[in-house]
Amino acid sequence: MTFSRDLSHVPDDFRVGGFRFAATAAGIRRDGRIDVGLIVAPEGTSAAGVFTTNLVRAAPVTIAEQRLALGRARALLVNSGCANACTGPAGHEATARSTRALAAALGVSEAEILPASTGVIGAVLPAERIEQCATQLAGQADERGFGDFARAILTTDRWPKVAWRRVPTGSGSTNLLVIAKGAGMIHPELGPPQATMLAFAVTDAVLPAVALKPMLARAVDDTFNACSVDGDTSTNDAVIILASGQSGHRPEPAEFERALQGAFAELAASMVADGEGAEHLATIRVSGLETRDQARQIAKTVATSLLVKTALYGKDINWGRLLAAAGRAGVPFDPQRASVRVGGVEIVRDGGPVGAGAEARANDVLAQPEYAIELCLGDGPGAFAYRTSDLGHGYVDVNAGYRS
Amino acid sequence: MTFSRDLSHVPDDFRVGGFRFAATAAGIRRDGRIDVGLIVAPEGTSAAGVFTTNLVRAAPVTIAEQRLALGRARALLVNSGCANACTGPAGHEATARSTRALAAALGVSEAEILPASTGVIGAVLPAERIEQCATQLAGQADERGFGDFARAILTTDRWPKVAWRRVPTGSGSTNLLVIAKGAGMIHPELGPPQATMLAFAVTDAVLPAVALKPMLARAVDDTFNACSVDGDTSTNDAVIILASGQSGHRPEPAEFERALQGAFAELAASMVADGEGAEHLATIRVSGLETRDQARQIAKTVATSLLVKTALYGKDINWGRLLAAAGRAGVPFDPQRASVRVGGVEIVRDGGPVGAGAEARANDVLAQPEYAIELCLGDGPGAFAYRTSDLGHGYVDVNAGYRS
Repeated sequence: MTFSRDLSHVPDDFRVGGFRFAATAAGIRRDGRIDVGLIVAPEGTSAAGVFTTNLVRAAPVTIAEQRLALGRARALLVNSGCANACTGPAGHEATARSTRALAAALGVSEAEILPASTGVIGAVLPAERIEQCATQLAGQADERGFGDFARAILTTDRWPKVAWRRVPTGSGSTNLLVIAKGAGMIHPELGPPQATMLAFAVTDAVLPAVALKPMLARAVDDTFNACSVDGDTSTNDAVIILASGQSGHRPEPAEFERALQGAFAELAASMVADGEGAEHLATIRVSGLETRDQARQIAKTVATSLLVKTALYGKDINWGRLLAAAGRAGVPFDPQRASVRVGGVEIVRDGGPVGAGAEARANDVLAQPEYAIELCLGDGPGAFAYRTSDLGHGYVDVNAGYRS
Repeated sequence: MTFSRDLSHVPDDFRVGGFRFAATAAGIRRDGRIDVGLIVAPEGTSAAGVFTTNLVRAAPVTIAEQRLALGRARALLVNSGCANACTGPAGHEATARSTRALAAALGVSEAEILPASTGVIGAVLPAERIEQCATQLAGQADERGFGDFARAILTTDRWPKVAWRRVPTGSGSTNLLVIAKGAGMIHPELGPPQATMLAFAVTDAVLPAVALKPMLARAVDDTFNACSVDGDTSTNDAVIILASGQSGHRPEPAEFERALQGAFAELAASMVADGEGAEHLATIRVSGLETRDQARQIAKTVATSLLVKTALYGKDINWGRLLAAAGRAGVPFDPQRASVRVGGVEIVRDGGPVGAGAEARANDVLAQPEYAIELCLGDGPGAFAYRTSDLGHGYVDVNAGYRS
């Protein structure tokens, strides 16, 4: 999986018809970095979203989900530095106030502004800082401003996360741009309508809201919902798509969905590679089970095992930890039939070790920044791939001191 | 919870009637430390055990469980340095050979020798090293040798784990000694008949096997089955109890069970406090749910959250992480009614923060080696307590290089 650590991969002439972007330093983050991003959409833009299934949900999640019942939107207002979660009625009012200020600046209805937040839990969003910069933000919005937007929504991320696609249609082509953030509290469980990863997709394709929602749910299923940094599902995860229709072209839905899923996969890989303190991106491929759900359950259990993640950090293919994690997943399989490959090197066959030579070659693979680990556990058709990162001292450094 | 980091708490005259202990360095561990322990029991000793529910089970687990169908045993043969897991028929034969050698040395039936192993997964137990020392081990067994036994079964543990009780009966008293090990791959899920923690209880009480088994299952439920270091359930967990009857006294079952559970709780606390790299022992108390199982599910999710465990390492009461973990446990509750106390200091009330002063006092609590964190999430009767450790650089150091 290729992904970029900057924006140099986006062609200079790339635009998504109708969308404009802005960002500013509103003073929500203490470090003075840009912390508020805005996406402005034209009239008639259809919208859909999926949100975290965590029972503890931030105010912006609740409000954005309610507003998406309309199936349309005119703007996305996103801040870093404050999750506005566990903040009760005061938090709800703060998010409402910030969207109200932006609605006035843009001259649109408050109900068409979708909020999203990421950052520390428990502090109320300082709405007055967004009120103070709303007019300026609205004024500076520009169709090439997505790079600033992408940087404004980062928290512990090391790099901005942007993917783009041109989706051909019979009569021409449409454009798709997806901007994401996420490095910690990453274990999205985005519901039939769920993820603090954030991802915002904008397209100028002609696509009604009713078509966007199921497409979004399917596209997250084996991308954002199949990746983990730390096993902790956030209170603020949100994936939102906006379609302006301004290209005038209506793509073949399956083709557009493939493009969307491809962009999501690219960004899920980028998020996990950028996982807090991570040095490696590992794809855990599990196959041979009776069902895809069984394979998913095992892949997820292996991908979130601390002993597996620290072994990857140590660049030592401690395969017993892989099988022990698979064995506690609650899914039946015959351990005597298990085989394990690391970057194509078979190290376990029929449930036992192939030999020290193979393991040494596998350890060479583990020194690479990106690799796949395959567990074949039978001959059933069920297979699933889950992305995970290694876990080492960098992770501890980030998380033992993140709040202060 | 008080526990000891050495054996000085055991009275000099403490014996458990009928049991003898031995240990030696058989050369299974590369570092030359003692690595094989033996407990010899007298004729007529009743026995019961619970073992890991991991689908991937080591050879000694399979063999010990089969043999316990007899309800009696004459010896426990335990090694560190090699788990003998994922070793197929060769591993099974190696465990069988080692118990055969010991049976011959003791002059008892092979079917009455219960094996247990802990250490690296994937290497076959070198049975010949146990064959070479079987006679010597059998010969040196001594009723005060439990300290050596306790040390022989350690792996990444920093200290030996021994608990003792005198259980009064109407006519006299009986003795109970429990010896455990465990610091990593600690997340026991001991089944109706299930734990690489190992714990071995010996008593001279008169208790038939049929009484021991349900007692054991209940005693592990909120002790070993309610503690976690890393969330990884081992292939080798085993808890076995042997009752020699040599005191001649039959304790009141409920009283004996309380003593057993108390000893298990003491050792579960010791294991978690000795968790790989751990500096703190935290008890996560969850209450106010409808059922105990719901409270258990939330307590376990909070106790195994990486973000919670790294916050504890950082001594920063990042309570948003506590609530976010509770919210993803799959159990319904009203976040607006949540309260959180750390060492008795209330920091969250009605789902929101009490204030910075309270948090500063809570952080002082987190500097202590041992404390409780209470989450009250409603007014239902369901409550559960789960023990966990902090996770920091020490954990990474141990696990990025454990195998080599």
